[in-house]
Amino acid sequence: MIRIFKSKSDSCNRFLKKLLSREILGNTEELKVVKAIINDVKLNKDKAVFKYTKKFDGAHITADTLQVKKEEIKKAVNSADDKILSIIKKAADNIRKFHSLQITEDIQMSNENGYISLRSIPIDKAGVYVPGGRAAYPSSVLMNVIPAKVAGVKEIIMCTPPDENGEIYNLTLAAAYIAGVDKIYKAGGAQAIAAMAYGTDIIPKVSKITGPGNIYVTLAKKEVFGKVGIDMLAGPSEILIIADKYANPKYLAADLLSQAEHDPLASSILLCDDENLSNKVALKIEIILNNLPTNVIARQSIKKMGAIILVDDIDEAVNISNEIAPEHLEISIKKPRKILDKIRNAGAVFLGEYSPEPLGDYFAGSNHVLPTSGAAKFASPLGVYDFIKRQSIIDYNYEGLKKVSDDIIDFAKKEGLYAHAKAISVRFEEEI
Amino acid sequence: MIRIFKSKSDSCNRFLKKLLSREILGNTEELKVVKAIINDVKLNKDKAVFKYTKKFDGAHITADTLQVKKEEIKKAVNSADDKILSIIKKAADNIRKFHSLQITEDIQMSNENGYISLRSIPIDKAGVYVPGGRAAYPSSVLMNVIPAKVAGVKEIIMCTPPDENGEIYNLTLAAAYIAGVDKIYKAGGAQAIAAMAYGTDIIPKVSKITGPGNIYVTLAKKEVFGKVGIDMLAGPSEILIIADKYANPKYLAADLLSQAEHDPLASSILLCDDENLSNKVALKIEIILNNLPTNVIARQSIKKMGAIILVDDIDEAVNISNEIAPEHLEISIKKPRKILDKIRNAGAVFLGEYSPEPLGDYFAGSNHVLPTSGAAKFASPLGVYDFIKRQSIIDYNYEGLKKVSDDIIDFAKKEGLYAHAKAISVRFEEEI
Repeated sequence: MIRIFKSKSDSCNRFLKKLLSREILGNTEELKVVKAIINDVKLNKDKAVFKYTKKFDGAHITADTLQVKKEEIKKAVNSADDKILSIIKKAADNIRKFHSLQITEDIQMSNENGYISLRSIPIDKAGVYVPGGRAAYPSSVLMNVIPAKVAGVKEIIMCTPPDENGEIYNLTLAAAYIAGVDKIYKAGGAQAIAAMAYGTDIIPKVSKITGPGNIYVTLAKKEVFGKVGIDMLAGPSEILIIADKYANPKYLAADLLSQAEHDPLASSILLCDDENLSNKVALKIEIILNNLPTNVIARQSIKKMGAIILVDDIDEAVNISNEIAPEHLEISIKKPRKILDKIRNAGAVFLGEYSPEPLGDYFAGSNHVLPTSGAAKFASPLGVYDFIKRQSIIDYNYEGLKKVSDDIIDFAKKEGLYAHAKAISVRFEEEI
Repeated sequence: MIRIFKSKSDSCNRFLKKLLSREILGNTEELKVVKAIINDVKLNKDKAVFKYTKKFDGAHITADTLQVKKEEIKKAVNSADDKILSIIKKAADNIRKFHSLQITEDIQMSNENGYISLRSIPIDKAGVYVPGGRAAYPSSVLMNVIPAKVAGVKEIIMCTPPDENGEIYNLTLAAAYIAGVDKIYKAGGAQAIAAMAYGTDIIPKVSKITGPGNIYVTLAKKEVFGKVGIDMLAGPSEILIIADKYANPKYLAADLLSQAEHDPLASSILLCDDENLSNKVALKIEIILNNLPTNVIARQSIKKMGAIILVDDIDEAVNISNEIAPEHLEISIKKPRKILDKIRNAGAVFLGEYSPEPLGDYFAGSNHVLPTSGAAKFASPLGVYDFIKRQSIIDYNYEGLKKVSDDIIDFAKKEGLYAHAKAISVRFEEEI
């Protein structure tokens, strides 16, 4: 049974303290492995990638088979049933539509002195990482690739680990095809991240790497950050639900489990002000678990990281939620919009009974790559803006610069930067 | 004398290869020190901060003196001469004006099924790091604080190391006051970064840390990234100039030196298609160096990281520049706007003879915190967007969800996520 805490109790405070100190840190051993792999790939390039693919994925990949061939993609698309292909296409359309609204305008400011502006330019090359095996999610392919495509990235490459036979899950390939990936490589783990960050003979060096992965992938992304851009460091999935007595307990139970089934470390938390509802939800969770094919993981997750917290009122729930800054937040109270303005920290907010979390995961068009582990306090859902960088333009004329030259010269000298001052004064003096 | 290379020569290729592989990596020893400091501050909080302030800054700081007092700020402002205060205020006004244009609108998409949106919310608490000692730049205070202020960040704190007497440079305090910092603490280095990331009894935990620093600060920012947001990893400053025969050699020489004086590792590169101009610039650099108070550092930088590259034509210069992705790019050719659209990777672009780099550093209103070390391939100037996070809102109605429910259920099952499917189906079935 899921735990039920009373807010402000010692046990609840202990639980929250643990949750709030969650942090994406590998242990020393994992970090050592990741650093060694990155150095090896920097030095030995594709040879190193093949070695680790053999070691970790059990697949024998060569220079001939590293890049997925057009025929493989065609075969994958043909082998997928039409119904699922049409669903993927519909989802892709919604994502494309919503993300197209995210394109930003250039800004400018001009006066008689000159002109400055900030313009947006898509990054040249982006690399998308897609996990393989149990966690191969075609939906994540769409969520990573479409924003890059909408941003106007010239070349989008994708790395994903092959199975033992050197093959990629057909729906992953189909989704990549539908989303418009340019090149796909059979490589996973830290070795794929290193390959995209430094480039090999076959895998191109990219400017930015996005996409979730296991702890090795995440640590590798943190290591190469600075050399390339990365989207975020992805931790285990999270759902937090704020509910009052009007909520339907079976909906809440199913929604909590929809995160719990992702990962034994996923966290599923219900904050509610009604004891009766709490008890009902706890029971419904057990009932659904009994028939759930993913019940082993979901049960571990609920036991380890799940909780129902009985709060005094919805205001207290809002405060706790803002502290936790959950990846997904469902608001299942009578008038959900009433508290929306108080919700400061959450990746995605789902309002009311008919906006369950999987609607955002698959279909509505919003991005499902969201900040976890409290990162919603400072980070955003993956978006077109992740594939756009800005550039300042400064264009002054002679009169304009002359007018401000004394101020700049004085300011620069106060900072001890005499060549800065000189770069201004030289333009208005006869000799140097 | 600055080196002059011919493009495509072996020596030029070696120089470019070294430059292009530049990376912000501390050595093992530095990283060990930084990790130890962070752990110490996590565990021992202010006590650890005081210890390292004594050790590295030579100042005896206590719980009573850690936070800068109102009277200290007042004293600093009063002790600064009116002229420089008025210059700082004018610069602040320009920065505020230009950054106010960066505020983004929320976006939304709705149809009969429901409504989704992406809204912008300022982060709650931001921490600005400001270096002390030789590199205490009041202008950097403005450039970090004003975007946060414009974004609507509720609380902006600042950490900066004190001198041996436990005092802060008066213009740093004055700039902080003018920019609107809420609280200032006398702490620097990795210990300040750790304090802002984890919080101490006195220094509040923030959600995002920005601002440049030495290698210890930069490594500490990379370490705490994930726990908090950071702006970027700052490397040595860079200028690249593209010039043709119409350029004025003494302007180019002064502008190259304006970056060289920052740091022995700063890089100053001129790409030009005219041998005569190249020789003149090399001579002018020597002349200016002879009378430059910062000539020791500037000379080292020019020797180590400076170069003039003779290119075949301006197109080649553009290609090399896009590869290098410089922090500052000056275009000093007859018609600078003609090549602007080809410039993809650069933090800030300065067009024409009367837009020297210090104009952007101090006065025009654009931000001078810019991506270095090639990060302009994926990163932007510091901006209001660095202090804003987005949040998705999903609000569907019963009919809307029903319409797409079968598609979501099928998609989720194909990914093996049965509780996701259940979270949809449970809303449309009698029993669970």
